[in-house]
Amino acid sequence: MAHLPAHSQSASPDAPTPPTRYELLTFGDELLLGLTSNTHLTWIGAELGRRGVLLQRNVTVTDEADAIAGQFRESWACADVVITTGGLGPTCDDRTREVLATVLGQKLVFEPKIEEAIRARFAKFQRVPTANNLKQAWRFERGEVLPNGNGTAPGLWVEQDGKILIMLPGPPNELQPMFTEQVIPRLAALGRLSDHEAYIQIRSIGVGESSLETMFQCTFSRNPGLGIAFCAHSGQVDCRISSPDGHYGMEKLRAIASECAALLGDNLMCYGHDSLAQVVADQLKLQGRTLAVAEASTGGLLSNAFADLCGACKFFQGGIVSTSNEAKMLMLECPECLLKQHGAVSAECAVAMASGVAEKLGADYGLAITGFSGPASGCGENPVGSIYIGLHAPGGDWAKHLTYPGPRSAVKQRAVNDAIDWLRREVMKESRRIAAPQVN
Amino acid sequence: MAHLPAHSQSASPDAPTPPTRYELLTFGDELLLGLTSNTHLTWIGAELGRRGVLLQRNVTVTDEADAIAGQFRESWACADVVITTGGLGPTCDDRTREVLATVLGQKLVFEPKIEEAIRARFAKFQRVPTANNLKQAWRFERGEVLPNGNGTAPGLWVEQDGKILIMLPGPPNELQPMFTEQVIPRLAALGRLSDHEAYIQIRSIGVGESSLETMFQCTFSRNPGLGIAFCAHSGQVDCRISSPDGHYGMEKLRAIASECAALLGDNLMCYGHDSLAQVVADQLKLQGRTLAVAEASTGGLLSNAFADLCGACKFFQGGIVSTSNEAKMLMLECPECLLKQHGAVSAECAVAMASGVAEKLGADYGLAITGFSGPASGCGENPVGSIYIGLHAPGGDWAKHLTYPGPRSAVKQRAVNDAIDWLRREVMKESRRIAAPQVN
Repeated sequence: MAHLPAHSQSASPDAPTPPTRYELLTFGDELLLGLTSNTHLTWIGAELGRRGVLLQRNVTVTDEADAIAGQFRESWACADVVITTGGLGPTCDDRTREVLATVLGQKLVFEPKIEEAIRARFAKFQRVPTANNLKQAWRFERGEVLPNGNGTAPGLWVEQDGKILIMLPGPPNELQPMFTEQVIPRLAALGRLSDHEAYIQIRSIGVGESSLETMFQCTFSRNPGLGIAFCAHSGQVDCRISSPDGHYGMEKLRAIASECAALLGDNLMCYGHDSLAQVVADQLKLQGRTLAVAEASTGGLLSNAFADLCGACKFFQGGIVSTSNEAKMLMLECPECLLKQHGAVSAECAVAMASGVAEKLGADYGLAITGFSGPASGCGENPVGSIYIGLHAPGGDWAKHLTYPGPRSAVKQRAVNDAIDWLRREVMKESRRIAAPQVN
Repeated sequence: MAHLPAHSQSASPDAPTPPTRYELLTFGDELLLGLTSNTHLTWIGAELGRRGVLLQRNVTVTDEADAIAGQFRESWACADVVITTGGLGPTCDDRTREVLATVLGQKLVFEPKIEEAIRARFAKFQRVPTANNLKQAWRFERGEVLPNGNGTAPGLWVEQDGKILIMLPGPPNELQPMFTEQVIPRLAALGRLSDHEAYIQIRSIGVGESSLETMFQCTFSRNPGLGIAFCAHSGQVDCRISSPDGHYGMEKLRAIASECAALLGDNLMCYGHDSLAQVVADQLKLQGRTLAVAEASTGGLLSNAFADLCGACKFFQGGIVSTSNEAKMLMLECPECLLKQHGAVSAECAVAMASGVAEKLGADYGLAITGFSGPASGCGENPVGSIYIGLHAPGGDWAKHLTYPGPRSAVKQRAVNDAIDWLRREVMKESRRIAAPQVN
């Protein structure tokens, strides 16, 4: 599926560094029982990736002290940087600090400065810390403290045996700022990762990974020694272009990327890391145009893709989730006779929903999804996974029929992605139309 | 956070089996770069958990052959059952089969029956398999084939050294039915897991883990030898009650669970594994009542929680995502003067949205969320993370103010959970009111 160098590397042209092996350890029965998903992996993996580091391994083990100790011992032996998340809190289940200190043969020492910070934080909420809370004031004898601006458990930084151990608190609102503001700069200062984006990324959509490789081959062969990595995910393929040995400067890398991008046409989604919805939002804001959405089988996920963006209210008028025919008639003015003749899962209904929601909310574009996302049975022409997308644009109204295999959640996600990509292509056309010289 | 036995166990009273150590290996740079989340872990972890098995470890490594081989060698040495996902397909990146065969010292042999199945599947779509596709027809010399009803790559089952290796295809629509229909029954037949739910689970909400432990302590101490496991996740705490040595039959376990449940009052969410939205849906369907929702800061996630349920159209009338004031006025009939006086993030607006959407869609209950979920700044009385929930019920209309720390995604999820739980408690009250003898 994906090709990236087996060893992480800083691909920055000005500061090549030796490969560093990163491992991430996540603890918790709730992860192993499938009750929560591993958001630490997705967040930290992406942050490292942007700085030229491919995390080499993520291991999740149970909360048991033996499991934590055993796994840490193994990871410490083969990695250069080990990051752990969670288990630094005040309860008896929070044992990361104690277990890892034992494995490393370090003493824990009480740090009055941390106590002070904990007391100050409690005082802010008119509370007094218990003895349990002060458990968090212990640090490694030979280690540093990463202050926590958003909670009581500080992070811990330990350098030993030529390796680095970074212990981060579990709550994302504490972990994330600590990682970007303290951990990344420290690692960059030690040459363990790049302090800026280490590559140029082209994000494409609608082209398979191997076609993309073939398409770019000619450009790459004219520029030998490039670092090239492809990664396919959710219908998109990213291509990262870097210069591992520093031969090419950023300017040259940009020129190479732009040569590749020109081959993609409208299959070029963006440079960098923006989401599909973000790309559309930027174009709509440039055009000064607005969007409204209507959806049935995707249940609110299409709306959420846009509502989730910063400054959504500048272009996103709102969404309607119409699971029933009544809702389609009441809120989207879908004519009853149309629903009776063609059914709610039809091209006609998709168009009626798209134009209905645009009119209702006074938006320039309307985007709609209706269909069977399963597991309840579809039938005949419209089996489970049969989806209609409707698009209302300044240039006209259309519908499109797509069929997806897979469980409900996959069908929903793919329908949302395809709908937004269709809108993106239509908005791009409109941008070109606006930009073209008008013939009178 | 969570306590479950360090070793997995079949807690079924009639068939106690020795602990089996399960490990799950997932491969892919896209996971380690945070581009996709590890849904195989959440799905397989939950399936095993229901049958009394706590997965002991999940390891994600890159797609490189060396990384796969090294990790498998290590896992095979310490686990009894190793499950791998993905890498069985037709491309050159799909190397799980070849790499694992080498590590186990097994030859791969061509299996004409798999070729036949591949050809039949291609014929169905009027296509002919390429040589690449036939790569999937190779199986382990001493191993079995798990037929794939939904794709071309069959699963592979290998028993060697007293251990079991299970290789599953990556696409969820192929993996999931293969796991439930073929893998689970085989493992159960070998006594490696329970063929039915191995415990009684009480799912609570609104009580902390340690309070729950204290609350149930008296009941548990009167029934020595019980297997008790608590697991906290997303505001809920599960308590699993089993009989590891088979002393207590299922009937007795049910009686013990029901004694515990009685202590919980409305903090009892359900027995088993239902989601919060499912619990509310069941009650609403029993009452013959309907629901509509309106949301701003949660962008469509509140709608999706209900729309995602099987048979949602029986009680869920639909949802409105109103990110702008215009949308609130146009679709929810929120009075302009109210929005001007109190603002869109206010108790007054939350109530207007809840009653507005219920009236608009003719629903009995209306549930609304408005607020700042970040990262854009709130201010003064309504900082980021400040959320108002509005509830319209047959008994009246109310609003509630809540403040959450954390990044946007966490704030949104907690707001949705709290809103649905409030609705649940109100619906429970209504159920009791309906059931109570009427005094004339």
